Amino acid sequence: MLKNVRGSKDYLPEEQMIRNRIKSVLEDAFQRYAFMPLETTTICYLDLLSSKYAGGAEIMKEVYKLNDQGGRELGLRYDLTVPFAKIVGMNPNLQMPFKRYEIGKVYRDGPVKKGRLREFYQCDVDVVGVSSMIAEAEYMSMVFDVFEKLELDVYVSYNNRKLLYGILVGVGAEQDQINDGILALDKVEKIGKDGVRKELIAKEFSEEVIGRLFEIVDQKDSIDLEFFRTKFDNDFVKEGIAELEELNGFLETLGIKDKVRLNPFLARGLDIYTGTVFEIFISDGSMRSSIGAGGRYDKIIGAFLDNGKEYPAVGISFGLDVIYTVLLERQKGMKQSLIDVLVVPMGTESYSLKVANKLRESGYKVEVNLGGGKLKKIFNRADKNGVPYVIVVGENEVEKGEVSIKDMRTGESETVAVNDIGGFEGKSVSNGFQQPVSR
Amino acid sequence: MLKNVRGSKDYLPEEQMIRNRIKSVLEDAFQRYAFMPLETTTICYLDLLSSKYAGGAEIMKEVYKLNDQGGRELGLRYDLTVPFAKIVGMNPNLQMPFKRYEIGKVYRDGPVKKGRLREFYQCDVDVVGVSSMIAEAEYMSMVFDVFEKLELDVYVSYNNRKLLYGILVGVGAEQDQINDGILALDKVEKIGKDGVRKELIAKEFSEEVIGRLFEIVDQKDSIDLEFFRTKFDNDFVKEGIAELEELNGFLETLGIKDKVRLNPFLARGLDIYTGTVFEIFISDGSMRSSIGAGGRYDKIIGAFLDNGKEYPAVGISFGLDVIYTVLLERQKGMKQSLIDVLVVPMGTESYSLKVANKLRESGYKVEVNLGGGKLKKIFNRADKNGVPYVIVVGENEVEKGEVSIKDMRTGESETVAVNDIGGFEGKSVSNGFQQPVSR
Repeated sequence: MLKNVRGSKDYLPEEQMIRNRIKSVLEDAFQRYAFMPLETTTICYLDLLSSKYAGGAEIMKEVYKLNDQGGRELGLRYDLTVPFAKIVGMNPNLQMPFKRYEIGKVYRDGPVKKGRLREFYQCDVDVVGVSSMIAEAEYMSMVFDVFEKLELDVYVSYNNRKLLYGILVGVGAEQDQINDGILALDKVEKIGKDGVRKELIAKEFSEEVIGRLFEIVDQKDSIDLEFFRTKFDNDFVKEGIAELEELNGFLETLGIKDKVRLNPFLARGLDIYTGTVFEIFISDGSMRSSIGAGGRYDKIIGAFLDNGKEYPAVGISFGLDVIYTVLLERQKGMKQSLIDVLVVPMGTESYSLKVANKLRESGYKVEVNLGGGKLKKIFNRADKNGVPYVIVVGENEVEKGEVSIKDMRTGESETVAVNDIGGFEGKSVSNGFQQPVSR
Repeated sequence: MLKNVRGSKDYLPEEQMIRNRIKSVLEDAFQRYAFMPLETTTICYLDLLSSKYAGGAEIMKEVYKLNDQGGRELGLRYDLTVPFAKIVGMNPNLQMPFKRYEIGKVYRDGPVKKGRLREFYQCDVDVVGVSSMIAEAEYMSMVFDVFEKLELDVYVSYNNRKLLYGILVGVGAEQDQINDGILALDKVEKIGKDGVRKELIAKEFSEEVIGRLFEIVDQKDSIDLEFFRTKFDNDFVKEGIAELEELNGFLETLGIKDKVRLNPFLARGLDIYTGTVFEIFISDGSMRSSIGAGGRYDKIIGAFLDNGKEYPAVGISFGLDVIYTVLLERQKGMKQSLIDVLVVPMGTESYSLKVANKLRESGYKVEVNLGGGKLKKIFNRADKNGVPYVIVVGENEVEKGEVSIKDMRTGESETVAVNDIGGFEGKSVSNGFQQPVSR
């Protein structure tokens, strides 16, 4: 009876504190960039989930299906994009551009692997109603803002799908081969150049076309837009370059141009994206997979809603779980106390509560020792848990109206009048993860 | 296709901002009182949900049931208490006392009424492993802390189940009538004295017993513990009084004794509670139902886990949705902008992004006008949305390196050098709901 369903996981407080910290850094940034919170329903009509231009047949296999007592055919949401499109469709008077974020659980009854659960979080930030590259520039600026606050050094790999499409046209790929070509090139980081060559051969690309493509693939890390401008002159390439240059101009002004890297083969699959695409990576390579990604999808909401209107949109999805994995790894071995101060009453419960409340009023996280026990044991446990400060309150302290605050890391004690205790400055309490929340 | 399932609701940004604000006030308080976040799975084995001492047959009718591709019998959680007991059982090395909170969605396929949805939030704060009344005192202290921050004047109605049990014993109720008596008296606020009398008669209480009970009921608003001490001398009453007096002592020290009201008939149903019970109400009566409630349940986790150990526990549940309803009502008619500053580029996109980012670095929520449009229209919309500050960035501003910040409420403008703009103090931006998050 006492076990979890395969592909699901509980997060105990030590873990959840880290996850909440990530969420709060993300939400803070989203709001400063004027993206506002939206919350959509978990249970949806199966109709909505299976509608055309939603996730498609592959994903429908993984949808948890259920019926309510009224016999309705329902399913659990498998992403936050379909609900977003639903909101746009259901609220025709929504002020455009509409900027929203949603952080929420989604459900997929699929294969369970390391890092792939059946109930997991998505963290999506989207804007609908903007064609200008300013939207993309703001996303990238926000990305570096977020990861600076999380103390993770990252870079953004980016591209424009029009450029990639134009390259395939330019090297002379057949019309019906272009999508295969995009998918093969998209994988170059994963399967290597030889892998890409094999896949192109398998898809019956001519030797000549492959040869021309590899002139580009072979120097992919050093080429710039100028290279493509001189080499190709079809409209796709031109438009892709124009959009990338507009974006680059913004990135230059924002001082983040040196943190982005052009990858002319990046496509992010075929399904959604129409223009800019980008992925976020940890600079030191300690995590190979991307920790967030996004792009422009100008057609999909319009196709989904099928109401004759246009819905140009750009979105980004942050990988909450993978960011959590990275931060958890970096914190290993560090003592991360969940509280700032432990107050230990020695037959002085009432007074101790008062001392605790004075500290809480100043924003400290304070635990009153409720379990009793011997002082030595209490101190050992506080030490083991990395609690930075302990205050023992005996009769003596109550009489004098002052308490002694023991710094568990230095072993030193400081005596403070109880009435002034709110002003006590936990010198090095704030390590980013156990900062008093509301001081 | 584009509609929501009955009993479910989306929250648009204006609504979700208020909900998030409530959550963040709650979480901040929980952590200062050393309750830490826990997150449990949504999908559970049906086995777990239907186990003895869980919700029982009534609630099982309302459980959403589903199967995964492996044919497992699963269900969506209907509360956060069963998952909490699960965690305690699955983690035998959990350090006691274990203090956790969980704010999460739960699902019940039941009747839909006003204020009763099929997917809704619970917000539970529990401690397991503490017998002392300090736990109760800390909860009540936390309650007043929370609602002071939310600017809602509340009082706590409280009782001890032992006292109520003892009263029924004391007036001479038959052993097999006591539970009926408790349930009838528990409803006195709802159905009135006559209603209670009718129910007692229906349950065949003798006239004599009813008479004795009504000596108490008739003066329920004026009686204190002394009254019961002199009137009854059975052990239940004695123990109940002793626990209430211990608690009262703590409340006195914490300066909140005058905010709690003894209601000797409060029981909170029969299912769970063994000692202290309490409910939170809005002082001005603008919301009749309680906005939070809790109590001590010393037996239930032990019975549920059935491992021979004792798990004394106290918990409180905040009514997120009802608190939201109250705050939403109070804000009606007030202009609540989601952003602090709107930056309007007039052909100066790059520079405007820079201005926006400088403000964002200082914690302001800044929107760059991405939709274009005429200035007059933009100003009208900003005014309608209650945006407090607008900055128009023309070529002139770029050349001079200074911008003019228009206060939309006074109509006055202030000129600030762009390099100093981060230090700009939005004088009355902070109204509690649109405060820059990280300044």
